[in-house]
Amino acid sequence: MNTFKVAIFGGGTVGGGVARILRENSALLERRAGCPVELVTILDLFPSASSKRHGIPLELYCGNGGDLNRDEASKYMAQILSNPEIDAVVETIGGSSDYILQVVLDILHSKKHLITANKALLAKHGTAIMRAAVENQRAIGFEASVCGAIPVIKGINDCMSGDKIESVSGIMNGTSNYILTKMSREGLSFYEALKGAQAMGYAEADPTLDINGGDAGHKLAILLRILYGIETQPGDIPVSGIDTINAEDTRIAEETDAVIKLICYAQREQNGVCATVQPMMVKKSNVLSDINNATNAIKLVGAYSRENLFVGQGAGSLETGSAIVSDIVYIARYGTASLRDYPSSGLSLVSFDSHVMPYTIIFDTEDVPGITGIVTTAIGKQEINIDTVSHNMRVSGQAGALFSIVTKPCTLTQIKAAVRDMQQTAPSIFVKEPKIIPVLA
Amino acid sequence: MNTFKVAIFGGGTVGGGVARILRENSALLERRAGCPVELVTILDLFPSASSKRHGIPLELYCGNGGDLNRDEASKYMAQILSNPEIDAVVETIGGSSDYILQVVLDILHSKKHLITANKALLAKHGTAIMRAAVENQRAIGFEASVCGAIPVIKGINDCMSGDKIESVSGIMNGTSNYILTKMSREGLSFYEALKGAQAMGYAEADPTLDINGGDAGHKLAILLRILYGIETQPGDIPVSGIDTINAEDTRIAEETDAVIKLICYAQREQNGVCATVQPMMVKKSNVLSDINNATNAIKLVGAYSRENLFVGQGAGSLETGSAIVSDIVYIARYGTASLRDYPSSGLSLVSFDSHVMPYTIIFDTEDVPGITGIVTTAIGKQEINIDTVSHNMRVSGQAGALFSIVTKPCTLTQIKAAVRDMQQTAPSIFVKEPKIIPVLA
Repeated sequence: MNTFKVAIFGGGTVGGGVARILRENSALLERRAGCPVELVTILDLFPSASSKRHGIPLELYCGNGGDLNRDEASKYMAQILSNPEIDAVVETIGGSSDYILQVVLDILHSKKHLITANKALLAKHGTAIMRAAVENQRAIGFEASVCGAIPVIKGINDCMSGDKIESVSGIMNGTSNYILTKMSREGLSFYEALKGAQAMGYAEADPTLDINGGDAGHKLAILLRILYGIETQPGDIPVSGIDTINAEDTRIAEETDAVIKLICYAQREQNGVCATVQPMMVKKSNVLSDINNATNAIKLVGAYSRENLFVGQGAGSLETGSAIVSDIVYIARYGTASLRDYPSSGLSLVSFDSHVMPYTIIFDTEDVPGITGIVTTAIGKQEINIDTVSHNMRVSGQAGALFSIVTKPCTLTQIKAAVRDMQQTAPSIFVKEPKIIPVLA
Repeated sequence: MNTFKVAIFGGGTVGGGVARILRENSALLERRAGCPVELVTILDLFPSASSKRHGIPLELYCGNGGDLNRDEASKYMAQILSNPEIDAVVETIGGSSDYILQVVLDILHSKKHLITANKALLAKHGTAIMRAAVENQRAIGFEASVCGAIPVIKGINDCMSGDKIESVSGIMNGTSNYILTKMSREGLSFYEALKGAQAMGYAEADPTLDINGGDAGHKLAILLRILYGIETQPGDIPVSGIDTINAEDTRIAEETDAVIKLICYAQREQNGVCATVQPMMVKKSNVLSDINNATNAIKLVGAYSRENLFVGQGAGSLETGSAIVSDIVYIARYGTASLRDYPSSGLSLVSFDSHVMPYTIIFDTEDVPGITGIVTTAIGKQEINIDTVSHNMRVSGQAGALFSIVTKPCTLTQIKAAVRDMQQTAPSIFVKEPKIIPVLA
């Protein structure tokens, strides 16, 4: 029984968590992998900080614990990659630069299995990385790249492998969900909630990719590849974030029996797959409306198994670390047999604009007679049926009207045409561009 | 690329679903298995009924579609088992008789991989079956045996393999959950709700194993083996069902911000694992309180990944069938490498009586002065703190008092001692034996 030997590149939040689990949990891991799993070495520029934070002995770091400069780090990296005893490398450096792409490709070209949580890199360079894996006949584990501890990759590859997955809807960014939860429960503005999230450590100092939907978009791109063999380029999936949502929108959500959530969404259609990441009005009857704070959730609907929901922690040192360790165990057990290359299934992305679902349109207008008639007439002209029209939600004494219309299922193309029409009919009464938010039933 | 060849024993609800998926979904299955997967034959005593129900061509059945007597079936079974081309047999005959045990052992001894949904058999004879698998170096897939389509077996074996699982709590019997949901939402009595479940097809004509907790107990026994290597004998796990729950209990649950659910429960403790199946008062803040009708759910708490929730369909032809097909794909891909024997981890079952959790005690007494003093004094004497005491919930005009006390966390041993004490102090005032129900926070 050969020992499966692992090196870690990057001893930060996630890499340090992986190291700690590999050391603490080795008896159980051996039982599950069918062989001993050994952490051989960690490459990090600042071992003392990593060692202290994660309780890892300094001797386990390259250079015996002293800080490394870039040249020294490159030298140790080359040593690890040329060491035939090392079976797998965990990449937890992060980022999607050309440098990190090269590191990842070098790992595979050196005939090491690769385990990574790097969603940005996989979303951007997934095809090149998969190709390198196939060329070198080494496996890639990336369970931790989508929703941290939630086993969505193995969930799709192994657990639901008997099924045809028809749709995905998920809350896949904890920072956004934390902010939206605070806004919804405490009536906070977006910026107040964001500051709170930063103070709690849920949001980075630069939270751009979390709040603009970019991070969630990376995860959905990875899922589209493994679900349908669809290769996406940045920009292919329409993505918008939560920075456009304000306290009034969350009040309107409540009024219409919904909660605003940033939803990663994909649906198998007749001629392809439509996909988007955007804030949606999630009806309270949908279990995703109950997923709060930094928790993630993903719902997969299969043709045979119907609704499957997975809920768990999408981030965190040990949480994400445990997903990486599950990949290590899996590859230790199955080796190259676990290599998958997700070939095209012949399906491609189709425009979200022609996908049919209900919409909420939020209007901020002058409070003039006839406004309801103007907007409902324009909606009717597009053959859209209306579900509900709210009363004016502007607090009494404030100027203008704030109200919403929830439609029956229709396309975004129809909604946009209706909005254009009403703006042309009465250009002066719209204080803001009407806000269009899909409704997830 | 060799074709992976499968035979099915039993073309009923689940076996027929498996056959349909294998035929309909073959392109996707090949992609996921890494080789073609072929359904070679189905052995069923009444092919025409199975064929009609599941849309399977009669030629696929042993005997070309004619009804078979037992002798003919035995002959075909022997032919299949001696056919070296067949890689795996799906056992969906069901039951835990000596006959079916022998069928399953024969499958393994004939060097076929075994896939089964048979929870009763695995709970009762798991050790013998695992031993036969190891002896013959063939894998066993039993994903469908616990919670149907919910991937709890792969969830534990592969998805959470990096983790130490500290506790399990789940709703693992759809019939019970359907009945309890109806009782809670519509105020029905147990027998009214049971009749409704039978009319809807959620409960068998003989629902004994569903309502007495036996079926859920089988599933928990399987989980204890794969989680902790604990081998149980029938009776080792304290099991009680929902047939003791009445409409008044569901009202008291509502009053104490809880919902009654039949819970499969296991908790890793200092010196072992405690386990039970019984109705519990699930607090509404616990997501399991929201799992309704026939839906199943299981929550696994890991030392590293923290809370993980899986929700899905616990029964049904295609739902359970899809879980079996996922096992076929898994074994087609990994073969004997996927064999696991779940050796003892050195942990054993410890008594649930000394496990600490809050309890609700429901009292049905004469309405006499001093009764609250008698029961609260007895509870205090056992060093149990009280959380809440309800008012008398007996409808005005009815005789007697119906009230509940919710305790702070304590042991069942303490609770039982308190109840004995109060019964000795005032033997004549208890109309019924006080009912003791654990509270799941």
